[in-house]
Amino acid sequence: GVFVRFGPEADAHWEEEKQKMNVTSDIENDFYFRYPSFQDVHVMIFVGFGFLMVFLKRYGFGAVGFNFLLAAFGIQWALLMQGWFHSFKSGKILIGVENLINADFCVGSVCIAFGAILGKTSPIQLLVMTLFQVTLFSVNEYILLNLLHVKDAGGSMTIHTFGAYFGLTVTRILYRPNLEQSKDKQGSVYHSDLFAMIGTLYLWLYWPSFNSAISEHGDAQHRAAINTYCSLAACVLTTVAFSSMLQKKGKLDMVHIQNATLAGGVAVGTSAEMMLTPYGSLIVGFISGIVTTVGYVYLTPFLESRLHIQDTCGIHNLHGMPGLIGGIVGAITAAAATEDIYGKEGIIKAFDFTGPYQTRTPSVQGGFQAAGIVVSLLMAFAGGAIVG
Amino acid sequence: GVFVRFGPEADAHWEEEKQKMNVTSDIENDFYFRYPSFQDVHVMIFVGFGFLMVFLKRYGFGAVGFNFLLAAFGIQWALLMQGWFHSFKSGKILIGVENLINADFCVGSVCIAFGAILGKTSPIQLLVMTLFQVTLFSVNEYILLNLLHVKDAGGSMTIHTFGAYFGLTVTRILYRPNLEQSKDKQGSVYHSDLFAMIGTLYLWLYWPSFNSAISEHGDAQHRAAINTYCSLAACVLTTVAFSSMLQKKGKLDMVHIQNATLAGGVAVGTSAEMMLTPYGSLIVGFISGIVTTVGYVYLTPFLESRLHIQDTCGIHNLHGMPGLIGGIVGAITAAAATEDIYGKEGIIKAFDFTGPYQTRTPSVQGGFQAAGIVVSLLMAFAGGAIVG
Amino acid sequence: GVFVRFGPEADAHWEEEKQKMNVTSDIENDFYFRYPSFQDVHVMIFVGFGFLMVFLKRYGFGAVGFNFLLAAFGIQWALLMQGWFHSFKSGKILIGVENLINADFCVGSVCIAFGAILGKTSPIQLLVMTLFQVTLFSVNEYILLNLLHVKDAGGSMTIHTFGAYFGLTVTRILYRPNLEQSKDKQGSVYHSDLFAMIGTLYLWLYWPSFNSAISEHGDAQHRAAINTYCSLAACVLTTVAFSSMLQKKGKLDMVHIQNATLAGGVAVGTSAEMMLTPYGSLIVGFISGIVTTVGYVYLTPFLESRLHIQDTCGIHNLHGMPGLIGGIVGAITAAAATEDIYGKEGIIKAFDFTGPYQTRTPSVQGGFQAAGIVVSLLMAFAGGAIVG
Repeated sequence: GVFVRFGPEADAHWEEEKQKMNVTSDIENDFYFRYPSFQDVHVMIFVGFGFLMVFLKRYGFGAVGFNFLLAAFGIQWALLMQGWFHSFKSGKILIGVENLINADFCVGSVCIAFGAILGKTSPIQLLVMTLFQVTLFSVNEYILLNLLHVKDAGGSMTIHTFGAYFGLTVTRILYRPNLEQSKDKQGSVYHSDLFAMIGTLYLWLYWPSFNSAISEHGDAQHRAAINTYCSLAACVLTTVAFSSMLQKKGKLDMVHIQNATLAGGVAVGTSAEMMLTPYGSLIVGFISGIVTTVGYVYLTPFLESRLHIQDTCGIHNLHGMPGLIGGIVGAITAAAATEDIYGKEGIIKAFDFTGPYQTRTPSVQGGFQAAGIVVSLLMAFAGGAIVG
Repeated sequence: GVFVRFGPEADAHWEEEKQKMNVTSDIENDFYFRYPSFQDVHVMIFVGFGFLMVFLKRYGFGAVGFNFLLAAFGIQWALLMQGWFHSFKSGKILIGVENLINADFCVGSVCIAFGAILGKTSPIQLLVMTLFQVTLFSVNEYILLNLLHVKDAGGSMTIHTFGAYFGLTVTRILYRPNLEQSKDKQGSVYHSDLFAMIGTLYLWLYWPSFNSAISEHGDAQHRAAINTYCSLAACVLTTVAFSSMLQKKGKLDMVHIQNATLAGGVAVGTSAEMMLTPYGSLIVGFISGIVTTVGYVYLTPFLESRLHIQDTCGIHNLHGMPGLIGGIVGAITAAAATEDIYGKEGIIKAFDFTGPYQTRTPSVQGGFQAAGIVVSLLMAFAGGAIVG
Repeated sequence: GVFVRFGPEADAHWEEEKQKMNVTSDIENDFYFRYPSFQDVHVMIFVGFGFLMVFLKRYGFGAVGFNFLLAAFGIQWALLMQGWFHSFKSGKILIGVENLINADFCVGSVCIAFGAILGKTSPIQLLVMTLFQVTLFSVNEYILLNLLHVKDAGGSMTIHTFGAYFGLTVTRILYRPNLEQSKDKQGSVYHSDLFAMIGTLYLWLYWPSFNSAISEHGDAQHRAAINTYCSLAACVLTTVAFSSMLQKKGKLDMVHIQNATLAGGVAVGTSAEMMLTPYGSLIVGFISGIVTTVGYVYLTPFLESRLHIQDTCGIHNLHGMPGLIGGIVGAITAAAATEDIYGKEGIIKAFDFTGPYQTRTPSVQGGFQAAGIVVSLLMAFAGGAIVG
């Protein structure tokens, strides 16, 4: 009530604002650029993440219900926290559809962390974790986007890397040896698998919207959707191939199909809006599908038995490692940018080399992108340790 | 065949029309302003309402199937009825995407009423009810929007209040004492609850599209989406809190989660496109979550035992009371409008104070809004009694 | 890597391109015209077709999973194949959102054929079939759209007719007498029916997006959505009526509800973007609902026992016959076009009577449309025989 007001494009004064800004048509309102993508992201957070976790036999309903609760709580807190850091103008937080998308993104990172500790915590503990994680997410995002001037439209670093390693640190601290005995709870059943496929498919289908939702208007949104589409398609094939190869009888493991097929979207999160090209996207999707599938087979049991990290839904495989890949691919793609590929004006628009960043070169940008990965990891470990 | 023609923006003559209207770009076509919202509303009516009612053990499939049938029938009749009242020009009904949305809205009110009588009626009876309810809906809508010049973009009055009290009157008249004996049919089972959550989530997620679908282009649509988003988020939290408080062991009642979380969308239906502000939306969502949850716990049993109103899905809690709240909040928000908040041109655009309504003041508008609630109630009771 | 590049509207050079083309606003990017429809089509292919086939008791999970696999594989191959035929400029395939839609469309025809052979083939065989069918689809599409200059925005001929008769030819060649013994596998169960309804509803709801996704900007997209909406609504009613009439006890057959309700969308695939008028759409939906329901009751058993065509999901009823109806309705609607109905400029825009086709008349266009049906059938039979 004290801080939040409508942004200029959602305020009834827009009629006058339009004339000042020389905008001739209502269709120029940011609402029409971003609302369809917002709705897709919204579905991903609540239906996608919620149902993805239903594959666990006993946690099924709780997964959807608690995901609903913590996400609905988180978006309100995120509107405030992100508002203070990003949309604070003359004492007020001015919100529009982009803030709604960002709030959903922020909560996405909480849903990821939730995947690691599912079955270990009470609803109240989840809300407390949400409160702190949203706060830390906003601080980390502020450091990356505003201080380091890093590009991360699909959130490989801010959402996936941060969310995954935050959740893994929390679950490490909440380690419970007895949990292993009730491991049969983690089995899956036929209908639960079909419900989980609803979650998987909606995440997979709408990921191009996720990675393009807050990109610059025009070609950047267009490009982000195409790159993500290509990466995801390639990822499905390598996942199926490797899942079949790594099983003794060549049978497909449903958990791989439900999760590893999504790694391609995570791994182009940073670079999707850049000139990664469809071919580059296919390669990234190809690699991330392999890494994630191998992770489920070898790394998750290792993490649990040796490092005492109980990763219920395997978020290290789906968000941790692909998130890191995404950050690295983003740094390389940024460093490799040239005026030849982007055009003179294109490169300025793509990396926002304006104002104080006017003199930054693509290779320097690549360095800052890499620094963003490190900062996200440190924030995740430190934050997870305290909150856990 | 006699009446319906394409509206100018869907007709092949548009190419010439554009030049006359000095429209320079195809993107100015109303299709691009409203089609994404239309699809969201479409999903709400058929998937949302259909699956929401699946939580009942035995009626599951019937709920989805009959909902499909009556909605598909209703939209055709609604296109005609609403067309005569709203889009009738020189002997023809000119339809465009806004008519499709309005037809879906109209059918939404039938789906609401269906929730009260589920399990009591045959398919043929449902079709007869649809035929009459669509007709009465169109008359009521005409009185409100055209005669009283009331604003009701999200349909708190026309859709929810009218639909709920119409359905409750019908179910009162169809009272069957024996129905109570087969009450175990109304129990819910694990997988049905997950299906019902699909309905709940799609309604919850797409409600911002519902309330903004037929608002004015530009800031009004933008604002309606933001207000609804905030109200719904707040509503989830109070629902969970009160559901937990009112149960003996503090356990959550799934029926509350599946229904009361949606009350926030109903309760900002009228005011979402106004300058309700995010804070105001949070308050409305907060209150409606409480009212609905308390309604499920105390009011539904009372209505059934004392007033012989068998409300199968609890539509009085989810649509009746929040619809009334929505009408009242709309009347207050309209009456409180000032040129300071809306801007000189903004207030004229927001309430359409043009032509014969040029001299209407916000406080008078508030009075007419309040009259709209009363008219909707009267139409619902009278219509429901006759049709029942 | 060798061929595919971003099209001008997805390339970072767009900033400069815009100035050359005198485009003043980012909203003019094709992304904003087509992306919402693309996402709806995407959901139809992966969720719609996948879950529609879940109604079969034993094949449930396989249907969703294999559909996912073959579609993800197919869209990559389709981007290349269709690119060579349609978007090949100075040695490069330039892709944009329209290519993504077309790739999904192409894969849609594979999903249709998959419905006929479900339960007969291994995943590897499916991938081989996908490889060849995508190739043949692209060739057929090239002949129709480029050589015959036929209009087929919703793909009645290229997608449905071709896909269905291709699949039926394949299943005829793969005829296995023993399959009948395990016919109980084809029974349906309660929860599977609800999952199948998810598939049905998403196909039904998003079909207006399917038929309008690649139509011309502006009125054509608008009109295609309205026509499809009307046809689908009418189709639901005739399906329910005839399903009830043809069963002995008047009970509804779930398979009819899940499938025949969609025939209306298939049958206006070619003509939806033309001036079919809402009334014409209702008639087409009315007829196709009857044909499909009658087909399920009488034709499928006949095909299996006499012609040894085992059509697991009944694609001949849902895609074959309505696809033919769609082609015929399209030919008639095109032949009946006049300047009076379309306007002087409208008729040129609607049928693209420009360049070498400047002198083509509507009646000649109707003839070519009819030729398109024949070509699609021949390609399907020949291709299916070889691939089978």
